[in-house]
Amino acid sequence: MEKRFILLVTFLSVVMIAMAQPVSDSDTSGSVRSEYCVRGAQYPRITPEHRAQFKVVAPEAKLVQIDLGKKYDLVRNEKGEWLGTTEPLGPGFHYYFLIVDGVRVADPSSESFYGCSMHTSGIEIPYAKDVLQYELADIPHGEVRMKRYFSKTANAWRRMFVYTPPCYEKSEKEYPVLYLQHGGGEDERGWVLQGRTDIILDNLIAQQKAVPMVIVMCDGNSQDFTAELLNDCIPFVEENYRVKKDRSHRALAGLSMGGIHTLNTAIPHPELFAYVGVFSSGWWAKAPMPGLMKMDTETYYSLLQEKKDEYNASFKEFWISMGGKEDIAYENCRIMRERFDKIGIKYTYYETNGGHTWPVWRESLYQFAPLLFK
Amino acid sequence: MEKRFILLVTFLSVVMIAMAQPVSDSDTSGSVRSEYCVRGAQYPRITPEHRAQFKVVAPEAKLVQIDLGKKYDLVRNEKGEWLGTTEPLGPGFHYYFLIVDGVRVADPSSESFYGCSMHTSGIEIPYAKDVLQYELADIPHGEVRMKRYFSKTANAWRRMFVYTPPCYEKSEKEYPVLYLQHGGGEDERGWVLQGRTDIILDNLIAQQKAVPMVIVMCDGNSQDFTAELLNDCIPFVEENYRVKKDRSHRALAGLSMGGIHTLNTAIPHPELFAYVGVFSSGWWAKAPMPGLMKMDTETYYSLLQEKKDEYNASFKEFWISMGGKEDIAYENCRIMRERFDKIGIKYTYYETNGGHTWPVWRESLYQFAPLLFK
Repeated sequence: MEKRFILLVTFLSVVMIAMAQPVSDSDTSGSVRSEYCVRGAQYPRITPEHRAQFKVVAPEAKLVQIDLGKKYDLVRNEKGEWLGTTEPLGPGFHYYFLIVDGVRVADPSSESFYGCSMHTSGIEIPYAKDVLQYELADIPHGEVRMKRYFSKTANAWRRMFVYTPPCYEKSEKEYPVLYLQHGGGEDERGWVLQGRTDIILDNLIAQQKAVPMVIVMCDGNSQDFTAELLNDCIPFVEENYRVKKDRSHRALAGLSMGGIHTLNTAIPHPELFAYVGVFSSGWWAKAPMPGLMKMDTETYYSLLQEKKDEYNASFKEFWISMGGKEDIAYENCRIMRERFDKIGIKYTYYETNGGHTWPVWRESLYQFAPLLFK
Repeated sequence: MEKRFILLVTFLSVVMIAMAQPVSDSDTSGSVRSEYCVRGAQYPRITPEHRAQFKVVAPEAKLVQIDLGKKYDLVRNEKGEWLGTTEPLGPGFHYYFLIVDGVRVADPSSESFYGCSMHTSGIEIPYAKDVLQYELADIPHGEVRMKRYFSKTANAWRRMFVYTPPCYEKSEKEYPVLYLQHGGGEDERGWVLQGRTDIILDNLIAQQKAVPMVIVMCDGNSQDFTAELLNDCIPFVEENYRVKKDRSHRALAGLSMGGIHTLNTAIPHPELFAYVGVFSSGWWAKAPMPGLMKMDTETYYSLLQEKKDEYNASFKEFWISMGGKEDIAYENCRIMRERFDKIGIKYTYYETNGGHTWPVWRESLYQFAPLLFK
């Protein structure tokens, strides 16, 4: 009986939440609900100064914290609610964690996102108004398709996400294709949910800043990413979607771990990719990376040295971006660029502020996509 | 420096997890990792008797519990790990919560699912082998598309998921369409992630038990679901997908709250739907449902009474399913069926065990879909 009662109360409360009149999004101090609040939640909130405000009901806990890169101890009130306000945050997506008596979890008030090898919470700080970059706008929208495929490399069913541009469904054309990889601790969802790939591309295409393209987002957590991409993903995509099949209409890019995957795949295979994007990444200068690196870094540099002119002629764009000096990959990338300079490999370098974070990677995609397939 | 160090350690650890050799899925006792474990997690595990085993590292917590409908207190060992094993669980998907010192959260070791008005965890108990129902198989697969649309009813951008069958992409045919609604505390993701709609339909279609169809899964958390469906979703789907546009190729079904939405929409609009499915639901016999009900229940019964013969002639299938007496909607449904019987409204009733849970709703879809569009 007890179980049925709990279920009934749960059912009633969720129906009541579902049906409740929407609560005003702003309070008297001008703060607004995070757009990732789950239905019925009033926190986290965002103040006009872009501080995040948290309230967690935890009367029995000893210590409740928020980890947003920086840790904040929340303060308990007499009702057993724990409250806190952060420093101002930059625009865009930020991962955060709730820590309850030392246990790091996702905030039950918030949408969850797979990152940092677990389901974390996310908060979205508004961008400047009226700039058609990262926000959903009243323009034609493409779609993102969840597609299952059998990977011979992994000997398992896997999932990819495929962005198709607004014009795809009703045309019979073939489109160029960008393979776009997430970072470590993330998966194929990263570029869709945290990265807003579809929104960014829809916005760029509507403004004719980028040509319509298909974007394929695979799970890079593979024992052999290059084999997975070349032997499984690309043949599957070319069989199942209307994409052009030559190198001049094929691009590869990735962030962080996905940037290393990109380098490790594109450098030995310039015959496959005319465009290469490396976001917040770089071959590791000092530490070896067993598992991630199939060849020693020097082998790649030798390849580049040996066929320098071919590489410079064949890559229509070799684009490297970095989230400023606070990006954890900055030093590796700097050393890699020095080696490229010494060899004479041409590349474009784009630096922005923000560190090793999604706002930087969204901006990287926003800057990189317009350079493709023109 | 501290923040960079934390980020670097996080980055290294996630790369190491991502790159690690896969750990054996089974231990000496024969238990296996839950298929929803995040990468690197070894718990929850499932024993051969289909018990779930949990291990949560929480040295500073006073009380750690698992809530699977029934609450289990985990037991702390000297390392600060909390362990516990549940009773045997039935096959299929079960929501569960981790409770740390009274705070109900999702388990950081597990995939998260939006249900019960928050991100909960899920555990999947294996089905009997070699039965092509709910498990991914080596057959042709359709896809699920995430599509944004502007809802005039909500005056907001919303998202729907659209399942297209395996043959859709390469044909020019128009397909019949089922509009399929989630329950209270869930959203448009429910039927995709918890419900495995694409797997169920791919399996049914491969066995020629169901005809290829498009399935549209909208967010039913709306102030006026009927208006949202009729004025926004259906016109958008008919404009953007190759679907047939007559009532005999249009079905509406939903579970729990979605079943009430289905009744409230299909009964006043038999001219729009030839097939109706009501899973684990029924008009509420006693309590009023402000918000959810636009009309008094008696108004619907009067409609049915008045046009009994028309309803019986026009619904090719009016299908009602129930998760046994332990289903929280059982009594409402029973009373509703009594009213239907008294009026003389024809319907098919299907009862199975399992209560108000996803295994029952998957089975409902598996039983209902083959009846459609034949």
